[in-house]
Amino acid sequence: MSASNRIVVLAAPIDGVPRADNFRIVERPVPEPGEREFLVRHVYLSLDPYQRSAIGGMHLTSDAALAIDAMPAAETIGRVIASHHPDFKAGDYVRHFGGWQEYSLSDGIGTVRVDPQRAPLSTYLGILGMPGLTAWASMIKLAEVQPGQSVLVSAASGPVGSMVGQIARQRGARAFGIAGSAEKCAFVVDELGFERCINYHDADVPAELARLAPDGFDIYHDNVGGQMLTDALRALRLYGTAILCGLISQYNDTEKGRGFDLAPAIIRRAVMKGLVVYDYEDFRQEFIDLVAPWLSEGKITYREDRVSGIVNTGAHFARLMSGQNFGKALVALED
Amino acid sequence: MSASNRIVVLAAPIDGVPRADNFRIVERPVPEPGEREFLVRHVYLSLDPYQRSAIGGMHLTSDAALAIDAMPAAETIGRVIASHHPDFKAGDYVRHFGGWQEYSLSDGIGTVRVDPQRAPLSTYLGILGMPGLTAWASMIKLAEVQPGQSVLVSAASGPVGSMVGQIARQRGARAFGIAGSAEKCAFVVDELGFERCINYHDADVPAELARLAPDGFDIYHDNVGGQMLTDALRALRLYGTAILCGLISQYNDTEKGRGFDLAPAIIRRAVMKGLVVYDYEDFRQEFIDLVAPWLSEGKITYREDRVSGIVNTGAHFARLMSGQNFGKALVALED
Repeated sequence: MSASNRIVVLAAPIDGVPRADNFRIVERPVPEPGEREFLVRHVYLSLDPYQRSAIGGMHLTSDAALAIDAMPAAETIGRVIASHHPDFKAGDYVRHFGGWQEYSLSDGIGTVRVDPQRAPLSTYLGILGMPGLTAWASMIKLAEVQPGQSVLVSAASGPVGSMVGQIARQRGARAFGIAGSAEKCAFVVDELGFERCINYHDADVPAELARLAPDGFDIYHDNVGGQMLTDALRALRLYGTAILCGLISQYNDTEKGRGFDLAPAIIRRAVMKGLVVYDYEDFRQEFIDLVAPWLSEGKITYREDRVSGIVNTGAHFARLMSGQNFGKALVALED
Repeated sequence: MSASNRIVVLAAPIDGVPRADNFRIVERPVPEPGEREFLVRHVYLSLDPYQRSAIGGMHLTSDAALAIDAMPAAETIGRVIASHHPDFKAGDYVRHFGGWQEYSLSDGIGTVRVDPQRAPLSTYLGILGMPGLTAWASMIKLAEVQPGQSVLVSAASGPVGSMVGQIARQRGARAFGIAGSAEKCAFVVDELGFERCINYHDADVPAELARLAPDGFDIYHDNVGGQMLTDALRALRLYGTAILCGLISQYNDTEKGRGFDLAPAIIRRAVMKGLVVYDYEDFRQEFIDLVAPWLSEGKITYREDRVSGIVNTGAHFARLMSGQNFGKALVALED
């Protein structure tokens, strides 16, 4: 254990795609827990595309960009190492918003225990965490996927997309993916069980979509926005559903909306619903109880894209935001 | 009656906003009705923004732009002057897609009789016609407006927007408008009974929307797309509804989507529904039976922007598509 807490902070404003040198490490003393507080040593730190928009001041209700020298927020899995809180004791594993650092304090609010016996700890940031809950809310709550339906998923090899397709399959629907490489597409079809996957780098996406679903897809789960959303809306059946969940395509953009045409939404009479996973916090246990058995029974799978060490956080985030990641982006912190 | 049929045709491809000289008049003999056909002398010809996208090949399922020397399609009100059809006789007034010309033939398919006793003939192209049916479908069928709700309407002085607000009001909701001049806004508030109207030319629209509905609007009816839609989505309450009905802002554009940001749709968890009025043809009588009494009782009103003479069609359409019209755009044809 290091004697100090290393924290990743913003070193310079991000222009477009983040680079490793947009961030730097500062060292601070490991904090002491006060009354009804506890200290958490982070084991995993989650990197997610929404953090890009949060840094830019475009995430949910916060319009303020992250200040220089401030730390990005992030979900973490950690181990309680000292506690003055009656409900958490040393040795407990917890998930909370610990941020891009090695240690954090918590007063218990927004912190939940996770069970390392039930599933690998890192999955509580991925398939059993917020990405998984997002996928569950999309398929079960908003799209209400039915057996026999066809579900199109962008960013299909990512932590949300991969679960969208797998939950759809478990519900008797057929999943079709769009991903950014032949390797990702092979994973999506061979390991996740999607029917087909389009590599958008080397395919005529509109033509492929029309070929895969001549009558249109029943549901589209969108993580991407932009041209991909336009193409997918055009490939929807009449009165089909589109779940709007992420806008990876524009998180790095300075000018919004380029290339996006809403006309197909009208032409297809689409029903589009915006999804924010925080609304489904109360369903987290219901979700885990549904999905964790699928995982332990081998019915669903996942892939992670890990680096080790807090010092590699910025570079790994830059990789994620340039689309070079493959699987759930995580930083494993030496313990 | 002229001895020939004057027809407006496309003279040159339209680049951006249409101009009068994009069109020219050709003269052809008045056609003779064949077996089970009848000849209609047009009284009114309807000009609507969707005709701009149809000319450009971007309307619904037709990807083909209108050919040079071809006539734009349009709804017309006309009088049957000769008939070999058992269901239509000379003297009947009918609504059908007669196009930008003075006479047309019909075999009865897609042609309906209209009653000049029940309402002024021109209203069957406006408040009792497709724009009115569009507004009805938006409020009654898709948004299912409820008493006490707040409804925001763009292009509020236009034939669709004005009816959206008035139907909402008749259902006990409050209507708020956005329009393009102080004169239009005065009409929207003083004559249509909207609560308030924002003149987007001289207001800080996002700030005004936030002031008018601090908790957000329940429903937004969009005729415009683009930046207006982004602003309105941001002003929606959580889980509010947006009906996507038109994209006036982009009909003249060559590059789609500029300035449009879908992030507010996610942030507000908006439910967006695309509306195509043709889906509601079977409800036309139900709609007229609801709305015509309101009109004759003076509960609702309308405004028209007329010119006389087929030769003025192109210039009037150019006026409409540059936002200079005020009310339902019509061409009255000398009789």
